[in-house]
Amino acid sequence: MKQNIYDDPTFFAGYSTLRKTQSGLNEVLEQPAINSLLPNISGGSALDLGCGAGGQCARLLELGAYSVAGVDISRNMIEVAREKLKGCNGINLHCMAIEDFTAPENSFDLVVSSLAFHYVKDIESLFRNIHAWLKDSGLLVFSVEHPMATCTQGILPGWQRNENNEKIHWQVDCYADEGIRKSRWFVDGVIKYHRTVSTIVNTLIDNGFCIRRMLEPHASEDAEKVRTDLLDERRRPPFLFVKAQKAVQV
Amino acid sequence: MKQNIYDDPTFFAGYSTLRKTQSGLNEVLEQPAINSLLPNISGGSALDLGCGAGGQCARLLELGAYSVAGVDISRNMIEVAREKLKGCNGINLHCMAIEDFTAPENSFDLVVSSLAFHYVKDIESLFRNIHAWLKDSGLLVFSVEHPMATCTQGILPGWQRNENNEKIHWQVDCYADEGIRKSRWFVDGVIKYHRTVSTIVNTLIDNGFCIRRMLEPHASEDAEKVRTDLLDERRRPPFLFVKAQKAVQV
Repeated sequence: MKQNIYDDPTFFAGYSTLRKTQSGLNEVLEQPAINSLLPNISGGSALDLGCGAGGQCARLLELGAYSVAGVDISRNMIEVAREKLKGCNGINLHCMAIEDFTAPENSFDLVVSSLAFHYVKDIESLFRNIHAWLKDSGLLVFSVEHPMATCTQGILPGWQRNENNEKIHWQVDCYADEGIRKSRWFVDGVIKYHRTVSTIVNTLIDNGFCIRRMLEPHASEDAEKVRTDLLDERRRPPFLFVKAQKAVQV
Repeated sequence: MKQNIYDDPTFFAGYSTLRKTQSGLNEVLEQPAINSLLPNISGGSALDLGCGAGGQCARLLELGAYSVAGVDISRNMIEVAREKLKGCNGINLHCMAIEDFTAPENSFDLVVSSLAFHYVKDIESLFRNIHAWLKDSGLLVFSVEHPMATCTQGILPGWQRNENNEKIHWQVDCYADEGIRKSRWFVDGVIKYHRTVSTIVNTLIDNGFCIRRMLEPHASEDAEKVRTDLLDERRRPPFLFVKAQKAVQV
């Protein structure tokens, strides 16, 4: 069964506070990196898989997209998105699992997804579907938790800390052991799927994509001046970003 | 100045013992992975950058290469290679730094390199040169120490160990801090260059390559049965392999 942690009241309350206080990495690291990978979408059609509260759908409209479809499994999130995007033309929001979404072939110029694919068990089917939904030369831009982070989730804490609770290094283990990871994030039993960097890359290639860019970013120096805790994101990459293009057959 | 550790007598003695005793990872992990990435080279021309003792040059000839050029900075290594390849047709060995090698454009169908590029400071120039040396649709197949390993070299030991000297996890730090790393490998002051996975990928793309495959392999189950220490290579990837193709402009 597909997981819907965002409609768990405890999770939703914790997550909402994280996003409101901007103490997480979305605004300072994830969104700038995704934005840097977005193509000119003016007059084009886009799909946001795991659209959450609709912020990215709104940005895609601002960038000139003619139509934007958003998909999220969480009713809570879709309701927030509906409210945010009220009155916007060209928006279609779908409350369903990413894995259940369907679209005609050649529907989109761009498919984008922020930090959602690590919740998807069968990434190969998803990439195959996205390839079909994209127009020729269409782009897939996505981020996932970095495999250096997912590998130990529920097994080891990421940071090794000293007796003063200071971070002394990042812990990696079980890297080649791909598959399910159960961990705690606001609530117990959050399920993610660990895949190696090479599996992500090769699964894209095997399903007709050409890799255009890969990012393992840290926050900007400006952001690091305001929040010195962000310097730790240079010590290991929290996220992996890929820009892949529906390859023209040669 | 380019580094030539392999002509340091202490290093060469230590390295030779490692390779003779087959206690390292070359035979059980590195070579099988490189071999799995090699194209049909029958009747083609190949270049091996950092050819060492010539084992890979010999394999390329066995696979039907018409001509094989080998480049290595170490006189010791090139002498061993000359002895091994005595009497073989189509072999050209060059004792020089990888960075100093030159060739006419469109010379090779395949450029291969095993665990040498992490010694090269300016990988961008090297990739640009290789792109020029390759024929259209020619392939570059190479391995490097994994960025998860180079990041901490000379800073932290890779494995965190407990009081019984057992490996408890792999340590990552300083990942985004690219550049020189000085460490000890048989001798002090071995210089390598840490680059992130994304930098390696993007530098290839920016210099006209298309990524065809990425590997972060462990040893085979058969090899692990004989040498149980190899199971630890599943815990973090020791090497990164890339197969990249000189892209046809579209």
